[in-house]
Amino acid sequence: MSSEQYAHAVQQYIDSINAKNLQGIIELFADNATLEDPVGSEKLEGIEAIRGFYENGAIKIGVQIESTGPVRTAGNEAAFPFRVLINLGDTPSRIDVIDVFRFNDAGKVESMRAYWGPENMGPQ
Amino acid sequence: MSSEQYAHAVQQYIDSINAKNLQGIIELFADNATLEDPVGSEKLEGIEAIRGFYENGAIKIGVQIESTGPVRTAGNEAAFPFRVLINLGDTPSRIDVIDVFRFNDAGKVESMRAYWGPENMGPQ
Repeated sequence: MSSEQYAHAVQQYIDSINAKNLQGIIELFADNATLEDPVGSEKLEGIEAIRGFYENGAIKIGVQIESTGPVRTAGNEAAFPFRVLINLGDTPSRIDVIDVFRFNDAGKVESMRAYWGPENMGPQ
Repeated sequence: MSSEQYAHAVQQYIDSINAKNLQGIIELFADNATLEDPVGSEKLEGIEAIRGFYENGAIKIGVQIESTGPVRTAGNEAAFPFRVLINLGDTPSRIDVIDVFRFNDAGKVESMRAYWGPENMGPQ
């Protein structure tokens, strides 16, 4: 897998969330992938747990993702900064996040870890 | 350790590189820390190897670091995006990087991993 392919997977991830395309997200992950969002929280294991995470989270809420800088690819990993825009209730809010994907040999995401904390949340 | 303390350590890291203050960088790391820059390259182990890395790299070259977004803290880790400005030769260049620090219980960096690749390098 090339860094170009990793960057392409990241773009598909962002585009799929913005289009509420659950399948477009899920097909990026390996069957045995793990997901830790945010880092330090309980790690989800397996594609079904990951499907539930996106279905009941980003897709249900209808968040929008705005890239805030280039994808950095290194080894078999990619890191990228973005802003999650949440338009619920009276006050549109945002979270500044950095995601790290680690890819397996087949080019699927085998580990996703999301870096963000309370101090990264605020109004848009 | 609080997320505020992690963010403070990141700021000291950036300020120390910009001031060519080697000691200010090194004191952030645990004696048994590891460093992988870029991710996928040989991992350096121990404070002396890490000292050499900065002394012969960032400090000798005199790079400047420009933050390009907020520090994201989560669990005992911090991730932050920045641009390295390198003014060597005729063409000033830059590298877009994301660093991930993992802290130990004493608040020292026990793991540093830097995400960047060839496609993140270019003119300023």
